[in-house]
Amino acid sequence: MHPEGRDNDMGVTPGLDMPLDEAMRTQRAIRRLKTDPVDDALLRELLELALKAPTGSNAQNWEFIVVRDPAVKAKLARFNRRAFSLYGRIGRRANQNDPKMLRLLDAVQWQADHFEEVPVLVIPCLKGARLPFPSVAVTSYYGSIFPSIQNFLLGARAVGLGAALITLPLWNVIAARRALGLPWSVTPCAVIPVGWPQGRYGPTTRRPIEDVVSIDRYGNRAWREA
Amino acid sequence: MHPEGRDNDMGVTPGLDMPLDEAMRTQRAIRRLKTDPVDDALLRELLELALKAPTGSNAQNWEFIVVRDPAVKAKLARFNRRAFSLYGRIGRRANQNDPKMLRLLDAVQWQADHFEEVPVLVIPCLKGARLPFPSVAVTSYYGSIFPSIQNFLLGARAVGLGAALITLPLWNVIAARRALGLPWSVTPCAVIPVGWPQGRYGPTTRRPIEDVVSIDRYGNRAWREA
Repeated sequence: MHPEGRDNDMGVTPGLDMPLDEAMRTQRAIRRLKTDPVDDALLRELLELALKAPTGSNAQNWEFIVVRDPAVKAKLARFNRRAFSLYGRIGRRANQNDPKMLRLLDAVQWQADHFEEVPVLVIPCLKGARLPFPSVAVTSYYGSIFPSIQNFLLGARAVGLGAALITLPLWNVIAARRALGLPWSVTPCAVIPVGWPQGRYGPTTRRPIEDVVSIDRYGNRAWREA
Repeated sequence: MHPEGRDNDMGVTPGLDMPLDEAMRTQRAIRRLKTDPVDDALLRELLELALKAPTGSNAQNWEFIVVRDPAVKAKLARFNRRAFSLYGRIGRRANQNDPKMLRLLDAVQWQADHFEEVPVLVIPCLKGARLPFPSVAVTSYYGSIFPSIQNFLLGARAVGLGAALITLPLWNVIAARRALGLPWSVTPCAVIPVGWPQGRYGPTTRRPIEDVVSIDRYGNRAWREA
């Protein structure tokens, strides 16, 4: 049992009762993970919280694949490396003067290099046809999975597990579908590598609220003066 | 000042320190809202938590429109009613034997009838082109806004504000863009009507985890036996 893990079977799992605002203020993508195993019961609790998120028309049309099988992991690792070899090159060139983005790319590179060693991958999927238009149908579709993904990530942060939302392993969605045995009616939406973090969680910096909020109409930055 | 609202300027806003798992377990869409005003400072705190959510490549390419202007609200109310008059009819016919869905449709109907009286609407948007393909590019795009929407909704639940994620007012995205003064480069993703609830938050029911989780490959419901 990991020291930060579940340590009793009664009541709330230690950590999950973290104050909401603290969990949000200290959430960040954790990519460098230890190889220590992740307890099934703990993972289950995070998935149960994920299932508490809202879905369009309360359809709950989600599916979650929990991958520990080395053979399936190896396939996704290969897809991820292939996509990152292109994305990483472009990214480094485009951000060569941005040390923060270069650090992020270093972490993504580390993740690509160690993908097979990640203890567990969680792959949230949606069932049912995604209409290609109108754009709001597309929005509503993804609005039924990302709230649950955010619940999962916040839960992981609260219990001290490292996690990050990535999509690179899904660039070739046909290959990803085959690796996971997904029928055409189920669309993989993201991959969440999960493990105990090498680094730590902590406060993040963001663009100031005054720069991204408009009042009544776009561009009216009244909060800037308030 | 509303009794459930912010009552000091030091430390954490009352409610926002709700245990994470409690906030998630009792989150639900609240559509029947009082007309009491919503404090600007409280709204700002929820938006600050929304901005703590992750975005793809940490782009933070979001924009939030906070609408209190009755003229803008009236336009969105009209769009919402128009879309619901069709959606609601289809929905009632399709779910005539499902009392739970009919109750949900009643709430959506109430919301449509009282849309102009909602104290404040929050409209999360994304900046930048949405590539129509590959599908994972679309996924990644929406993956940069719905985590922040979920933060906002969880924060609202924690402080006792009612809120719900809807998209019907955006079905005609050209009209919605015009009403909000959005340039082509900014896409509205959802509308969140916010106000003090007439009803109350409480535990929700969901499909059992064993029915939606697969181990290693789709369809392997090993957790069902565990």
